[in-house]
Amino acid sequence: MKLVFFSETDDPAPWREALRTALPGIDFRVWPDVGDPADVRYTLVWKPPAGWHRRFPALRAILSLGAGVDALLEDPDLPAGVPITRMVDAGMGRQMAEYAAHGVMHFHRRMPEYAALQREGRWQPLECPAATEFPVGVLGLGVLGAQAAQMLVAMGYPVNAWTRTPRTLPGVTCYAGDAGRAAFLAGSRVLVNFLPLTPDTRGLIDRSLLAGLPRGAYLVNLARGGHVVEDDLLAALDDGQLAGAMLDVFGSEPLPVGHRFWRHPRVIVTPHIAAVTMAEGAADQVIENLKRLEAGDTPRGLVDRSRGY
Amino acid sequence: MKLVFFSETDDPAPWREALRTALPGIDFRVWPDVGDPADVRYTLVWKPPAGWHRRFPALRAILSLGAGVDALLEDPDLPAGVPITRMVDAGMGRQMAEYAAHGVMHFHRRMPEYAALQREGRWQPLECPAATEFPVGVLGLGVLGAQAAQMLVAMGYPVNAWTRTPRTLPGVTCYAGDAGRAAFLAGSRVLVNFLPLTPDTRGLIDRSLLAGLPRGAYLVNLARGGHVVEDDLLAALDDGQLAGAMLDVFGSEPLPVGHRFWRHPRVIVTPHIAAVTMAEGAADQVIENLKRLEAGDTPRGLVDRSRGY
Repeated sequence: MKLVFFSETDDPAPWREALRTALPGIDFRVWPDVGDPADVRYTLVWKPPAGWHRRFPALRAILSLGAGVDALLEDPDLPAGVPITRMVDAGMGRQMAEYAAHGVMHFHRRMPEYAALQREGRWQPLECPAATEFPVGVLGLGVLGAQAAQMLVAMGYPVNAWTRTPRTLPGVTCYAGDAGRAAFLAGSRVLVNFLPLTPDTRGLIDRSLLAGLPRGAYLVNLARGGHVVEDDLLAALDDGQLAGAMLDVFGSEPLPVGHRFWRHPRVIVTPHIAAVTMAEGAADQVIENLKRLEAGDTPRGLVDRSRGY
Repeated sequence: MKLVFFSETDDPAPWREALRTALPGIDFRVWPDVGDPADVRYTLVWKPPAGWHRRFPALRAILSLGAGVDALLEDPDLPAGVPITRMVDAGMGRQMAEYAAHGVMHFHRRMPEYAALQREGRWQPLECPAATEFPVGVLGLGVLGAQAAQMLVAMGYPVNAWTRTPRTLPGVTCYAGDAGRAAFLAGSRVLVNFLPLTPDTRGLIDRSLLAGLPRGAYLVNLARGGHVVEDDLLAALDDGQLAGAMLDVFGSEPLPVGHRFWRHPRVIVTPHIAAVTMAEGAADQVIENLKRLEAGDTPRGLVDRSRGY
């Protein structure tokens, strides 16, 4: 079976080695060295160009190298009816929980303010609430959001979560849908975004949502830039409604030169590094899915195109 | 019974209220309003001047507002034979574990480098090891060190600890004494200091100790400035043996204007805020100890002057 690998940011070498070892019959190809496109049965991809998949008439499945498939689904020429799988954790949950926990503590312990005081050479202790008085609001409780929520609970933070449909998770106060939104926001000192990007969630973090948080709240976004209306976020930071934002994802990546986020004193920018897919754990998942697909079984992490994830 | 409160940094009001409520017979005095010094039975203090205690001839016990009593014990005129108690946790362990966990993640996830890249407006993802490849070395496993070690274990970091006498703690690789020192240091990517300051531990973090860490290691110091030979630390930072240090405590506090730590690009300075004694939990401990002392029982957190803690 022939598989084509496409990514501008992932090294194909560990994937080639892992897949060839586990699946001796595989013909592992790295774009553009694909041979006859009519033989290609699978693609393993991260952000291929729009229309790219149309060249493979015998495609049986598209395997995403990432957990989010929003970029893939935006391709109007994506072959209909071909199953798409996405990564389900594969070490990403652990990294994202770390990034979220670091962001929460960084704001809770007022580290950006201490950094500013250090630049001025000023010794000035600041008041700090106990962790029990600094509730965290988690947007989305998928595999990744739930893992972060559990780490935050273990660290002693009160954790609220907001989901589209009602969910429960031990130790977490769960809110759902439009009815739960106002109470969820009002009770969260820091908002951590773990939602998938879908037509429903695009632009969700806008002026109205930010205004529902307590004054001086914080935002940690490690999901997708498209969740945030950037001008609304900047306005909330400028007028003090938000005291800070730690952003790993942006509407356009790399974040454009000269974008206000780079220089805003209340914004921390990281270059989409909250989680990187690690070939080791992820390869096991791809191998398992290729075996299932070859056997006619349902793969793990099958994407529901109508939901968008 | 008369008690005198002395602190230049703690508000006496919540202490007065808590102690008067629990101990109706107490005569709570705030220095310098002490009345007749011969009536003073207890002091509740943080860093009184040297010789200050000599004015109270009938003193039965000295109750420290902090966990560390090194400043008290340095007073050559401290009345001999008067029991001293120190705070045992009282919410401090939780705060110190937070500070330690934040420091470890901040360095592990290369946040100081991302901050520098942000100042330059550069989008540059950096390699990052898995948490399982980033072992933490905890110096000291008292109540505070053990709590931090346990939080770090729960977060997925391998944790080593080094103590004077052999100790064990679930999930932690324990080393002890001179025999265990080299292996402990060589296996720790970030060193977190929780030792008490005693004649044995003063200046422990010197050139020789820092040279035993892997090249490019990090230091988080939230114990006492006196543990660190500051010139040796600066030399290790300048030559790259250490990649960064997060320092909450200093040989002289407030950190003097113009000290190199303020401006060093690899040093993060916070103004002794890793943990503050919170009157609520701490008052219960002081009340319990006053009751025990009045009844002739042994108080909790009794200091062994020969050990220094």
